[in-house]
Amino acid sequence: MRLSLNGRMPEWAERADRHQATAFVDSCLRGVGMVIFLDNPVTGILILVGLLVASPWLCVATLVGVASATLAARLLRLDVRTIRTGAYGYNGALVGAALGTFLLPVWSLPVFACIVLASAISPVVMVAVSAVTARLLDLPALTFPFNFVAIPSLLATFSIVHIHHSPLLAIHAAQKIETGLRATEGVTPQADPGVIVGAIFRGIGQVFLADDVVSGILIVAGLFVASRVVALFAVIGSVAGMLCGLALGGDGVAVYHGLWGYNSVLSSAALGGVFLVLRFRTAIYAVACAAATAVLYAAMVFVGSRFGVPALTLPFCIATVVFLLVPWATTSIRRVPLAEVSTPEERLRIGS
Amino acid sequence: MRLSLNGRMPEWAERADRHQATAFVDSCLRGVGMVIFLDNPVTGILILVGLLVASPWLCVATLVGVASATLAARLLRLDVRTIRTGAYGYNGALVGAALGTFLLPVWSLPVFACIVLASAISPVVMVAVSAVTARLLDLPALTFPFNFVAIPSLLATFSIVHIHHSPLLAIHAAQKIETGLRATEGVTPQADPGVIVGAIFRGIGQVFLADDVVSGILIVAGLFVASRVVALFAVIGSVAGMLCGLALGGDGVAVYHGLWGYNSVLSSAALGGVFLVLRFRTAIYAVACAAATAVLYAAMVFVGSRFGVPALTLPFCIATVVFLLVPWATTSIRRVPLAEVSTPEERLRIGS
Amino acid sequence: MRLSLNGRMPEWAERADRHQATAFVDSCLRGVGMVIFLDNPVTGILILVGLLVASPWLCVATLVGVASATLAARLLRLDVRTIRTGAYGYNGALVGAALGTFLLPVWSLPVFACIVLASAISPVVMVAVSAVTARLLDLPALTFPFNFVAIPSLLATFSIVHIHHSPLLAIHAAQKIETGLRATEGVTPQADPGVIVGAIFRGIGQVFLADDVVSGILIVAGLFVASRVVALFAVIGSVAGMLCGLALGGDGVAVYHGLWGYNSVLSSAALGGVFLVLRFRTAIYAVACAAATAVLYAAMVFVGSRFGVPALTLPFCIATVVFLLVPWATTSIRRVPLAEVSTPEERLRIGS
Repeated sequence: MRLSLNGRMPEWAERADRHQATAFVDSCLRGVGMVIFLDNPVTGILILVGLLVASPWLCVATLVGVASATLAARLLRLDVRTIRTGAYGYNGALVGAALGTFLLPVWSLPVFACIVLASAISPVVMVAVSAVTARLLDLPALTFPFNFVAIPSLLATFSIVHIHHSPLLAIHAAQKIETGLRATEGVTPQADPGVIVGAIFRGIGQVFLADDVVSGILIVAGLFVASRVVALFAVIGSVAGMLCGLALGGDGVAVYHGLWGYNSVLSSAALGGVFLVLRFRTAIYAVACAAATAVLYAAMVFVGSRFGVPALTLPFCIATVVFLLVPWATTSIRRVPLAEVSTPEERLRIGS
Repeated sequence: MRLSLNGRMPEWAERADRHQATAFVDSCLRGVGMVIFLDNPVTGILILVGLLVASPWLCVATLVGVASATLAARLLRLDVRTIRTGAYGYNGALVGAALGTFLLPVWSLPVFACIVLASAISPVVMVAVSAVTARLLDLPALTFPFNFVAIPSLLATFSIVHIHHSPLLAIHAAQKIETGLRATEGVTPQADPGVIVGAIFRGIGQVFLADDVVSGILIVAGLFVASRVVALFAVIGSVAGMLCGLALGGDGVAVYHGLWGYNSVLSSAALGGVFLVLRFRTAIYAVACAAATAVLYAAMVFVGSRFGVPALTLPFCIATVVFLLVPWATTSIRRVPLAEVSTPEERLRIGS
Repeated sequence: MRLSLNGRMPEWAERADRHQATAFVDSCLRGVGMVIFLDNPVTGILILVGLLVASPWLCVATLVGVASATLAARLLRLDVRTIRTGAYGYNGALVGAALGTFLLPVWSLPVFACIVLASAISPVVMVAVSAVTARLLDLPALTFPFNFVAIPSLLATFSIVHIHHSPLLAIHAAQKIETGLRATEGVTPQADPGVIVGAIFRGIGQVFLADDVVSGILIVAGLFVASRVVALFAVIGSVAGMLCGLALGGDGVAVYHGLWGYNSVLSSAALGGVFLVLRFRTAIYAVACAAATAVLYAAMVFVGSRFGVPALTLPFCIATVVFLLVPWATTSIRRVPLAEVSTPEERLRIGS
């Protein structure tokens, strides 16, 4: 029997369930994929390879995060079937990636301990967020739990001295904004097609804090395996975010490194088929949300800079929740009931 | 048949419905009135004349905002009867007024485009806010959507260079506060009755960002046409906010220009008859809320100044929601069910 | 008949109900105890004695706050039985303590008026918070109302000149953090057992803003009278918070004065028996929450310092609400239904 890599790979999940260890590894890999809504272990593997290309430490920090979160969910005796989809792991994966990126020194025991502990709290926050979003509003928790764990963790480093944060976290006074695309401050701007395409894929990589073109390409490949539609909307979102950055006159270094894109990647993928029933007007709506996300990113990056912390994926979470609430008041855009969320392809096949 | 200008003018609404264009204009005018809870096109016209007196650009920006929001609500196929009351337009009107006031240069295409786009998002945010306030708590959305659109839009201008904000938006270091009423920093304070009365009407004008005594008078006239009670409570609120500013020792320039008043205007009008059943004790309660709103204004203006943005109407929204939740736990103050909200006079007539 | 001082003292409540005045005093005393979840007037008296030892003004400010809030709840005709438990008073007690601590000058009429008015608003905010937490989520309001009244009140002092705040409220630039335990900046650090034990009891005193070891001991005694379990978890929480401060490298002056502890005291007491069914794993869970609370304290103290305000008990409220939502998704931790909340001992006796 040949295993299909498509969709959620339920046959493989059954096989993996035969051994506790393979089931745990499978849950973790699915957790990595679930960051971009895809409950598929092959997607998870391709993403992890992408992170490895960008930085081995980033890959390990992500793995430690997802494993710690998944283990904590087991210890809390949360629903086993939900744990198997990676739903309690994906926020831990991002907590690992973010703390691994913004805390120093890399490969150190204190940072390792921070990642383990902070990620282990993420399933607790996931349940709490879901108790509001899912129970009261039938909405997904998105990556709110990641933000609610990682942002306070990063803020706390300003009150303590035994954990150090990277110089990336700094309280900025007035910022000098130059719009030319360039890799670092003080170099000549470039706007050739290679840089533009690079910014699009870096935007996808930045979802996992991987500032690397190849990472972005491997992540898109991972999405493509499970869902062509999600892969397409991820790319569309990155393009939309980048174009907003250029049109509004965002800082060229930020645009170059995909920072205007990663939140829009997630918004676009969320609305373009995962949580909304896909039609032509949904696609327009997803792009509108990706653009609104980019503006919200500009606002929150400024607010964050006053406290020395990044916006992480809060702009995506807020904009997407807002746009997902609209189907309550219109029949022109239809939501997929939370319990039936799957890949767009699976839904199209069963004719929803 | 003579048309009554009183209340919600349902006969006129029916006539306007005969043509799409008049229905659209009527919806927009009602949207302007709905900022102060009055679904009445004549109220809307008088308010717009008031804005025109203060500044033609402010009037046009408000009109563009309300039209863009109303159109977007149509395109999203939101409920047509709700659109006709102006409920999807009023936040757009304020987004237009606020972006027109705080973005530069006036009458420019980029600012015009910002107003159109930001206002068009406001019905989306309106549905999202209502999904929480109205569905879960039976509370009105108030002007939360306006704040949730305008504040991020203004914050975003600090991260970009192609849209410019007015010098009114500046990050303040320590502020020197002088309490004498005066028009600008560095002039001799005045406290004659004219200045006091001026501050009261400017406070009403400032609801629409119109810093002008005549605007305030015309707005009160507009309210008076549809509801004497709402007009009265608007004035009471402005007085209460100004007195709090004087009593607590707020900055005299801010008090002079009605900035201590406009949030209290809205709180007082909201509680004094619109969303609560009017009795003597409700009036006391409305004044208490207006005073609490003024303190909250002082707090939020300080927080906003650390990010270079104004408090807009968030103090009103927060204080009013808090005070509107109290009827859940007491029979001494009764709420008007959200579906029956109308003018106080109409309610008194039908004997609620 | 000998009165038992244990638990909620229902026999005494019945006796106190015979006279309006004794009922009112009893309600106020219970309000003081309810700050640490114990509806017991003797607990309230011992806490007040503790505050008196620390500072007569702090004790009076707390009393004025709880009396003003209880009276306001009566005027609003809120549920009399709920008022009698102190549930509408405890936030007022803390508002009094906080404004008494952070506003100047002490014993002055303006500050006295601020305490009366701000505390009187606290039952309004209590109802509003409960309308969300209790009605929608079956969760307690905790001290959210205190924070939502006191933090804006303190922020507002930066926009006005007639009410002065203490130099304790100051906007900090970069903070120099030294970890050695010491009473003030610039003295030699001490880490003898006395200082450590002192920090633990100061942490308990700081729940009521009493920076005093004897206050902390008297408060623990007060808790012990009504519930041995709550007293124990309060001490455990203070230890956990202090150890987090030492382990993470928090400022030694803050740790010395119990500032790392007071939020953890409340989180630990809330989870260790009051709102969760007590078992061994609940105790572990309570300690985990106390540690998470300490990290959140570090984050929020930093955010607050950018606006010149303290974190008050927001870290406790947020962490505890998050941890209290987890029982929705697991059977391994069980919540006490809100209507049945009592002391752990009473629940163990009736065999819940």
